[in-house]
Amino acid sequence: MLRAQPDRLAELAVRADARELQWADGLPLLEADGRLAWGPVRNPLLFLGLDGDAPRFSALPPSPPPTVAFGLLAQLETEDAPKFACALSLANWHGRHGHCSVCGQPTELVRGGWSRRCPACGGEHFPRSDPVVIMLAEHDGRLLLGRQPHYPPARFSALAGFVEPGETIEAAVAREFKEEAGIDVADVRYIASQPWPFPSSLMIGCRAEALSDRLTIDFTELDDARWFTRGEVAAAVSGDPGAPFLPPPRYAIARTLLEHWLAA
Amino acid sequence: MLRAQPDRLAELAVRADARELQWADGLPLLEADGRLAWGPVRNPLLFLGLDGDAPRFSALPPSPPPTVAFGLLAQLETEDAPKFACALSLANWHGRHGHCSVCGQPTELVRGGWSRRCPACGGEHFPRSDPVVIMLAEHDGRLLLGRQPHYPPARFSALAGFVEPGETIEAAVAREFKEEAGIDVADVRYIASQPWPFPSSLMIGCRAEALSDRLTIDFTELDDARWFTRGEVAAAVSGDPGAPFLPPPRYAIARTLLEHWLAA
Repeated sequence: MLRAQPDRLAELAVRADARELQWADGLPLLEADGRLAWGPVRNPLLFLGLDGDAPRFSALPPSPPPTVAFGLLAQLETEDAPKFACALSLANWHGRHGHCSVCGQPTELVRGGWSRRCPACGGEHFPRSDPVVIMLAEHDGRLLLGRQPHYPPARFSALAGFVEPGETIEAAVAREFKEEAGIDVADVRYIASQPWPFPSSLMIGCRAEALSDRLTIDFTELDDARWFTRGEVAAAVSGDPGAPFLPPPRYAIARTLLEHWLAA
Repeated sequence: MLRAQPDRLAELAVRADARELQWADGLPLLEADGRLAWGPVRNPLLFLGLDGDAPRFSALPPSPPPTVAFGLLAQLETEDAPKFACALSLANWHGRHGHCSVCGQPTELVRGGWSRRCPACGGEHFPRSDPVVIMLAEHDGRLLLGRQPHYPPARFSALAGFVEPGETIEAAVAREFKEEAGIDVADVRYIASQPWPFPSSLMIGCRAEALSDRLTIDFTELDDARWFTRGEVAAAVSGDPGAPFLPPPRYAIARTLLEHWLAA
């Protein structure tokens, strides 16, 4: 594996076809056409892999990323989404892991940016990717959607929460529905997944059958949660101005889940 | 949420029905019947939740867990597996996170052991759970299984690898098959998941269709990889002494994946 070979990485970095990802305000920079912006190699700390045969690197951005920066995803070309998520997740992780969690000493970036090593205690630390369940529940043909406090007005979307140590995906879905909406679910099914680099999650999209439609909403987590009919969800997803809610944006897996439900 | 209420946790810890998980040699202790061993509350650092109405706590084990300690899972009652995985994952994480990764200062255990806070910089750190894909590939009715160097003799099992930042589950499955066995796959499907507390993974079980059966094995990762017929897999799973390989143990999700494939 190239990451484990610093000499090979150094050779790749000086090749004529090597490029380095550009950053602005703590986020990967996009060209006007929605593609990631690449420039000459100056500080190739992160090895982002080969694009065909061409080496792709990144510096670490000097400024931390904004905590909520989803807007850029609306412009991003789908083809570049994995590299965008990879670079931003890694940068977020390095930004918060300059010290060894075991002994507290400063760590060194190694393996082309895919790990950090502690010269003091020898500990090695790898980037994290936090599994999150994001999920729809259906009851009698209607779909449960909720509002998080930070959503724009009228937006409803899938409920979500971190998978905790000791849980299966299915157990996490059941616990989150119980905690946030007070409902029991059965028949949890996986639909699709998406990396979400704010700061470094793996979104695991699921659907389930609710055993009842009686909600007990946890208002410390959600502003609101409601059942919507197929017609209401279809109106929202199609952009109908008379729809009873605004759907999640196109780049979010929650939107994919709604479209999957409508198509089923 | 109880974890965020230290006063409530303190009340729960002194209740007559409160119990504390027992540890031995860095691992949760099991009773002869395979159930987790519980004793009086002495050092309730980790809040493991309510068992019915009864509070369940744990100390942090004084010794670090052995790196490979799967054997105990063969004795563990299935019903207690989630709590075993939860307690051991949390203990593993605390054992390697006594310092703040942002600034290096010692951190404090808070929220009933579900996070650590840095008094120096204010950073808060949450337990990690690393998503890992574990997967079967089928080609022309045969199944691809591999041997990792640390396996007992004759054992073959599903290939596996960490989901990397920026990847979907499906992309991770495709990359791992390509890297470890040199095959391209299509039609990746999720089957089941399992928490794996060595040290703190979420195993995401999948299957896929291989586009060719021509293998290019990465011998730095695997000792061997081979295609097995349905009859060979069935013989191995049923314990037939004439089977061409030993299957993964009953408590591992790899075994579940084999049984799922045989049943399909």
